[in-house]
Amino acid sequence: MTSPVPVVLVFLDPAFPGGRLADASQPQLMVTDQGATRGDGVFETMLAVGGNVRKIQAHLDRLAGSADALDLAIPGQDEWRRAIATALSEHRVQNPAPAGAGAELVVKLVVTRGAEGAAAPNCWVQVSPVGAGARRQRETGIDVILLDRGYDSDAAERAPWLLLGAKTLSYAVNMAALRHAHKQGADDVIFISSDGRVLEGPTSTVLLAHVEKADDGTSVKRLITPQLDSGILPGTSQGALFTAAKAAGWELGYGPLEPQDLLDADAVWLISSVRLLAPVNHIDGKPVGTPSVQKELTAELNELFAGIQ
Amino acid sequence: MTSPVPVVLVFLDPAFPGGRLADASQPQLMVTDQGATRGDGVFETMLAVGGNVRKIQAHLDRLAGSADALDLAIPGQDEWRRAIATALSEHRVQNPAPAGAGAELVVKLVVTRGAEGAAAPNCWVQVSPVGAGARRQRETGIDVILLDRGYDSDAAERAPWLLLGAKTLSYAVNMAALRHAHKQGADDVIFISSDGRVLEGPTSTVLLAHVEKADDGTSVKRLITPQLDSGILPGTSQGALFTAAKAAGWELGYGPLEPQDLLDADAVWLISSVRLLAPVNHIDGKPVGTPSVQKELTAELNELFAGIQ
Repeated sequence: MTSPVPVVLVFLDPAFPGGRLADASQPQLMVTDQGATRGDGVFETMLAVGGNVRKIQAHLDRLAGSADALDLAIPGQDEWRRAIATALSEHRVQNPAPAGAGAELVVKLVVTRGAEGAAAPNCWVQVSPVGAGARRQRETGIDVILLDRGYDSDAAERAPWLLLGAKTLSYAVNMAALRHAHKQGADDVIFISSDGRVLEGPTSTVLLAHVEKADDGTSVKRLITPQLDSGILPGTSQGALFTAAKAAGWELGYGPLEPQDLLDADAVWLISSVRLLAPVNHIDGKPVGTPSVQKELTAELNELFAGIQ
Repeated sequence: MTSPVPVVLVFLDPAFPGGRLADASQPQLMVTDQGATRGDGVFETMLAVGGNVRKIQAHLDRLAGSADALDLAIPGQDEWRRAIATALSEHRVQNPAPAGAGAELVVKLVVTRGAEGAAAPNCWVQVSPVGAGARRQRETGIDVILLDRGYDSDAAERAPWLLLGAKTLSYAVNMAALRHAHKQGADDVIFISSDGRVLEGPTSTVLLAHVEKADDGTSVKRLITPQLDSGILPGTSQGALFTAAKAAGWELGYGPLEPQDLLDADAVWLISSVRLLAPVNHIDGKPVGTPSVQKELTAELNELFAGIQ
């Protein structure tokens, strides 16, 4: 068992324009909070580097979209930004020593429907260190297994109540899929739709790359991700990286993708806001891509990604 | 907005053999509790009548099954029973006046994976009054709409990580489906699989009945429910009622059922532990069953159900 992680906690509260600091080592939620009893709420997980939250606008926009899908009336983005600033500032006060230009922190935004009978959602910001596991997997890469997500790729469009494009607190299936992978000695999962399409990871977006030599000896690099209307979460990291890659001359592509496309790629990654680019080494035990190409492309994409604000 | 409901709260705690009483009007959960941040846990909702919890063994067994599906090592059933007794006894102390032979209470059992880094799950019992809405709907009946659940009826069997037979805290989709129904002026939902099979309600089991006149003038009553292997939660109320109905001479049947089977039935109900039998009056706006038969069968089944301990 790991010991509790030190967390800085700030609740959004109309009585406190900059947010209300609270002690995360003490209970702060009611047992009737519908986040706890129904997984009824939404969240975002962001990375702060040297005190700056990366892609903050994309995260706040996605949080607003998720809240809208669940009919949750949440505070405005300015209020969230102020609470985030309060939390990061408090973290600096509590941890003067380890902070540096490259210090990385996880900034999590959480909205629950509040306690039974509450007039407004319960909203907070929590700041904590990046886990060692995430950092290690950026370097070593990961082994994944493919798991059936149960939904076909049209479900999101015909059944909005399934909340497939919203980042809800109801992550029990995502967590069960990860445990299932760990029991098999794998690190992570790529979900496949019931009609055989590549979807996403439980907490990440799937990316793959192809490098093709043109007749004139130059090479064309193409970055591909599953199409959004298959019922996956729009990845803020994938979106930002695609923009940067396009500016750097990459071609971009969108699915539909099938499992064989992953095995045929020159490199595959799971990308997310905190772990960033995790190169996929094996899928269901089969080696993926070309190690030298994977290494080179990962370095290039990491550099592009490091320039994203 | 409703005002907070008075809740009696008892945590399961190895240091307190009968459970640890806590103040539910104060925060008792950490913000990092994985129930709140991931909907990662399981629950049961039971009805106590005159101080006795109905079908307690079936609920404790289902809780154990759900916990097992999520790899949660929860306390033994004796410990749960003692905590439940403590909570009910405390409720009697706090509410001496309204208690009577028929007084109804909701007894909820909740297990979360605990705060990040916790060594053991967080387990509690909460006791609160039955809401007026549930009681009213037993009498008036309900209008329901059919909604696509996104999964086909084989998903549960081939993909156990979807946790389809477990009662998890990740209920955001169930709640979204209910909101979708309310916006359309309906009271509740019956989920249909992507391959067109009748599944279950977001918080209930589907029952239907047929009454057939035999050649000799007697009538044969048949009670039918969707088959369990379609990925629905095993209903403790359905199970108990089937046993009682069989003893009273009913025939029993199990799906597969299609939406047309609901419209062709003499009566349809959603059955659950607290609301009990809620007669379905309309499905997608179409009248269901024969009102006089529905009324008669509901009375008969309610009487059978009242005899269940």
